[in-house]
Amino acid sequence: MNSVRIGSVGLGRLGIRHAENIAGKIEGASLTALCDVDPAKLEEAARRLGVSRRFTSFDEMIRCDEVDAVVIVSPSALHTGQIAAALAAGKHVFSEKPLGVTAAECGEAEKAVQAHPDLVFMLGFMRRFDESYRYAHDKVAAGVIGKPVLFRSNSQDPEKFIDGAIAFAPQSGGQFLDMAVHDIDLARWFTGSEPESVYAIGGCYAHPEFARYQDGDNVSCLLKFKNGAMVFLFAGRTAPHGYNVETEIIGTKGTLRIASVPQKNMVEILDSHGVRRECSENFLERFETAYVNEVREFVDCIVTGRRPEVTVHDGTRVSEIAYVCKSAFEQGKLLFF
Amino acid sequence: MNSVRIGSVGLGRLGIRHAENIAGKIEGASLTALCDVDPAKLEEAARRLGVSRRFTSFDEMIRCDEVDAVVIVSPSALHTGQIAAALAAGKHVFSEKPLGVTAAECGEAEKAVQAHPDLVFMLGFMRRFDESYRYAHDKVAAGVIGKPVLFRSNSQDPEKFIDGAIAFAPQSGGQFLDMAVHDIDLARWFTGSEPESVYAIGGCYAHPEFARYQDGDNVSCLLKFKNGAMVFLFAGRTAPHGYNVETEIIGTKGTLRIASVPQKNMVEILDSHGVRRECSENFLERFETAYVNEVREFVDCIVTGRRPEVTVHDGTRVSEIAYVCKSAFEQGKLLFF
Amino acid sequence: MNSVRIGSVGLGRLGIRHAENIAGKIEGASLTALCDVDPAKLEEAARRLGVSRRFTSFDEMIRCDEVDAVVIVSPSALHTGQIAAALAAGKHVFSEKPLGVTAAECGEAEKAVQAHPDLVFMLGFMRRFDESYRYAHDKVAAGVIGKPVLFRSNSQDPEKFIDGAIAFAPQSGGQFLDMAVHDIDLARWFTGSEPESVYAIGGCYAHPEFARYQDGDNVSCLLKFKNGAMVFLFAGRTAPHGYNVETEIIGTKGTLRIASVPQKNMVEILDSHGVRRECSENFLERFETAYVNEVREFVDCIVTGRRPEVTVHDGTRVSEIAYVCKSAFEQGKLLFF
Amino acid sequence: MNSVRIGSVGLGRLGIRHAENIAGKIEGASLTALCDVDPAKLEEAARRLGVSRRFTSFDEMIRCDEVDAVVIVSPSALHTGQIAAALAAGKHVFSEKPLGVTAAECGEAEKAVQAHPDLVFMLGFMRRFDESYRYAHDKVAAGVIGKPVLFRSNSQDPEKFIDGAIAFAPQSGGQFLDMAVHDIDLARWFTGSEPESVYAIGGCYAHPEFARYQDGDNVSCLLKFKNGAMVFLFAGRTAPHGYNVETEIIGTKGTLRIASVPQKNMVEILDSHGVRRECSENFLERFETAYVNEVREFVDCIVTGRRPEVTVHDGTRVSEIAYVCKSAFEQGKLLFF
Repeated sequence: MNSVRIGSVGLGRLGIRHAENIAGKIEGASLTALCDVDPAKLEEAARRLGVSRRFTSFDEMIRCDEVDAVVIVSPSALHTGQIAAALAAGKHVFSEKPLGVTAAECGEAEKAVQAHPDLVFMLGFMRRFDESYRYAHDKVAAGVIGKPVLFRSNSQDPEKFIDGAIAFAPQSGGQFLDMAVHDIDLARWFTGSEPESVYAIGGCYAHPEFARYQDGDNVSCLLKFKNGAMVFLFAGRTAPHGYNVETEIIGTKGTLRIASVPQKNMVEILDSHGVRRECSENFLERFETAYVNEVREFVDCIVTGRRPEVTVHDGTRVSEIAYVCKSAFEQGKLLFF
Repeated sequence: MNSVRIGSVGLGRLGIRHAENIAGKIEGASLTALCDVDPAKLEEAARRLGVSRRFTSFDEMIRCDEVDAVVIVSPSALHTGQIAAALAAGKHVFSEKPLGVTAAECGEAEKAVQAHPDLVFMLGFMRRFDESYRYAHDKVAAGVIGKPVLFRSNSQDPEKFIDGAIAFAPQSGGQFLDMAVHDIDLARWFTGSEPESVYAIGGCYAHPEFARYQDGDNVSCLLKFKNGAMVFLFAGRTAPHGYNVETEIIGTKGTLRIASVPQKNMVEILDSHGVRRECSENFLERFETAYVNEVREFVDCIVTGRRPEVTVHDGTRVSEIAYVCKSAFEQGKLLFF
Repeated sequence: MNSVRIGSVGLGRLGIRHAENIAGKIEGASLTALCDVDPAKLEEAARRLGVSRRFTSFDEMIRCDEVDAVVIVSPSALHTGQIAAALAAGKHVFSEKPLGVTAAECGEAEKAVQAHPDLVFMLGFMRRFDESYRYAHDKVAAGVIGKPVLFRSNSQDPEKFIDGAIAFAPQSGGQFLDMAVHDIDLARWFTGSEPESVYAIGGCYAHPEFARYQDGDNVSCLLKFKNGAMVFLFAGRTAPHGYNVETEIIGTKGTLRIASVPQKNMVEILDSHGVRRECSENFLERFETAYVNEVREFVDCIVTGRRPEVTVHDGTRVSEIAYVCKSAFEQGKLLFF
Repeated sequence: MNSVRIGSVGLGRLGIRHAENIAGKIEGASLTALCDVDPAKLEEAARRLGVSRRFTSFDEMIRCDEVDAVVIVSPSALHTGQIAAALAAGKHVFSEKPLGVTAAECGEAEKAVQAHPDLVFMLGFMRRFDESYRYAHDKVAAGVIGKPVLFRSNSQDPEKFIDGAIAFAPQSGGQFLDMAVHDIDLARWFTGSEPESVYAIGGCYAHPEFARYQDGDNVSCLLKFKNGAMVFLFAGRTAPHGYNVETEIIGTKGTLRIASVPQKNMVEILDSHGVRRECSENFLERFETAYVNEVREFVDCIVTGRRPEVTVHDGTRVSEIAYVCKSAFEQGKLLFF
């Protein structure tokens, strides 16, 4: 088969990264089209990456015959519509999370995917494609740590990006939907189970601005899963040390920790601050390889006809769960699924 | 002032350790009397440590004029009575936790202490006397990490002692009372606040034997504290790697972790298992110095007339909180304090 | 400019890896030809990677018009001749180390490169392209750790590959030439200086087989560099924990350590062996990204007309230094450069 | 037997520490006398520690009947004489290193010890009494890491004490005698062998003041030991991160590292400097427990009639070796033992 020809929509930070990866790092794929509402941004990226097909309209891009597959990195509110439209136009679809910004939207997206069983659809839960997470998952799946007892995940954004987080707060959906979805996906993936109950707390410890959206700058929740596993999730926006995502899975026979000491690379510094390692600056740095790997997987599924491991239903479930967490947080109640 | 003459009751593992410490490592104190119901154990320890006053009756020991202070390391069910009796006999009292095995008992102990304001009473929350915990607490108190956002603590007993834990289950009161009390004490100490609500879960993941006591082999709870701080506690009995107590305090300006990578000592081993550190075998190894330091503090309070930082009320509060956690776990409900 | 068309020679483990990288991970490059003396190996790799031009003769490959650049991963003894021939045929050349197996050969290679200033020549010192080494080098270059005091490097091969090492011993040139050349390159790169004296020791601690080649299974040397920096290198073949390359640069104002705790990935395991991290299995795993990056750099130099930072003279110098270390080891004397 | 009554001479930083330890932390010992040439210092310490016998003359102290044993923490130049005098007066002797400041002095000390086989003599190589070093030594002795291949040790003093180091330079004997003696002792202890050859280098990288004493601010040496083991020692005075002593023993079957990531305690800090641990401030902090343990061992040897593991000959050998290292450094030659 020839190279999979990809059109990518959305040229924010992550969109640019996806475009660069497709253009230069994904064997068997080529970046043939780019789409963004901002013509200047579009021109700059297209010229730099050698992409001739340039669109300010998504609908036009998906009508392009030289596009086999679409990568959606647009604002969340556009995801559902673009997923449905691209599939209807016969394109394979890779979409960044979330599937939709309401339960109804998630349902629509799920229907659209089911209506096109011949097309590959994949959702961007990139952590599953990080080598350390995958290595740990293989061990858990192989029974190395026995039965899962506690899944604990910690996702922190750096304090230095707080202004952006505040500006984005009206659309973010809150931390459970914006950040914790990745941890919810991991919890389901590692435990192989679904939540039964949740208690969620948190608050605005440093930045009262989030309160008006019924959100906090740091939140957490404790979930009981149907197989008995305990799940504790923490999400924060005020980490002084940088971007920090760490996960612990305690089993009856062993414990695995992924990135429990966050690290930018393998350099250790000994200076007047002690013995230290620097952290990754943001998700693009921490998950650099994962972002490449997930699109590789998408392309490989198209080429080989395999189904991606991450299904559209995973996307719906994760969103549903995040909504319940959010409600539990807002209501201060114990909620059941 | 002369040396503080101490009589110690209870010669289990920890009792022996306290006796050895008092006999050889505490400046300004001497071990003048020992008490245990088992005469053989008593003789062996007394001879080895050079203690001439030997009692199988606690009441007799506290009538001894050569005893200024009593260290109580007897079974939990005896604590309240011995505390009250020793104070009534005019002795300073250091007691291992818990103050009592019911709320009523805690109340009695508290009354007894209040009735003897001239005598020093101290409860053995030894973690507060561990150098790493103290160093971290000093930093938190100095505002180094800003406002506390999340206090998280993890207390694990080694799987290899599970038979002892099962045998002890009928009297232990369950993991919240037996193990998590130390974490509850730390949570109050680090946050300077009290709990408002709690949700607790867990189960018997490896050992169904705990179920008949409405306990689990691994449990956890999420508490909201009055100052807004989130508190997550995990306690387990099935750690294959050894005894493991770790604590994280996330603040608005920094995070502190105490023993987040458990370690027996400073030796790192590179062999066919990778690069590794061994863990402490049990609480006596991990908190070796803390057990010395806490009795030093007790003796110093007697000598200088200072009040110990840990009050009898701390003991009552910690027990009360542990009871509520236990109830939340048993009922599967969100409970409020 | 169009894609750089690369022909790669040698399909051993590293040769296969280079071929795969060029075929799928290097933007702006395409793998158009493969060469190996083993027709079966050649067919398998060429078919799998979709390469139509297949050669069992290097001389034929470099006459192919569809090849712009050659990547040399053949046995060391062939390097010099192939470098010279490829350059003479007008091809850009990337060669794995060493430049040659004698000082004379290195001189020939150097002359060949100098005779073709219009062609890009680059030697595969891949560690310089590892992200952690590069990060550390940037800091050293920026003066962050002050003046270099001690450069220390440790390169260990896993004991489990010892049979291969013994079989390869007659051709390897010994550990200083086979393994320590990478550390010598780093020492020059980090200190910006050249050696003045060397004392080298070691022996056959576990495997007497190396003695007949006047080599050891573990060796080390201490060098004084012209700028005063101390350089200590250790190379071993008997590491039970896996492949381990670590480097420390102590400066007057700080110390940097690269991979001082070897790690396969970010997963930490807590089990009956303690708290541990696994190591990389071999150089391909540890330097996976570096092998991609170095060929990217080679291609980028061709495309942009830049000169690679690693010069042919670096290759000669490193070999010369390794020879002196080897002589010092064989003679048990302090040698001067 | 009654408590061993100790008289301690020298009230510098380490002397004060020893006095405090003896007064309060050593079971079976009591501090009965103190000696220092500075009457004010003497009074302050004696009063604070409750010592009634106070001497400004060492000769008077050793005539005191209430002194069974002497601890020598006076300036190095006085050691030999005080050791001999105290033994002649029938006192057991614990002396801080070195035994003497010349080879002749070491010989005299050795003779004095041999002349009093009934008295306990012990030299203060405290690292052997550090729990991590002891744990590692036990493993090596048990053959856990196979045959020793490389012993590497790193001893660094903090840059912030450089003024003191410069002031002390005329008497220090240089870094090999002042600092590396501890590493030399460890090398002999861990390898069970003696050096055969040494090459030593270094210089004044930051502080030219040491040059006039033919010393450097950072030095290193590579030794070949008689059993074939390689030994690399590094000693420095300019560490910005604090006091740092680390040791690695590479064996044919495993590697042990002691304090390879220096740490003040078990607290990890995550802040704008990354993820970090602070270092110990000085040798008193790092080896706090070791200083207690070594005097406990001394007292226990007196009480039980055992011989200390560290012999007077160890002291002589270590000094001899340090002198050869120093000569090798000064002459820039390879020297043989």
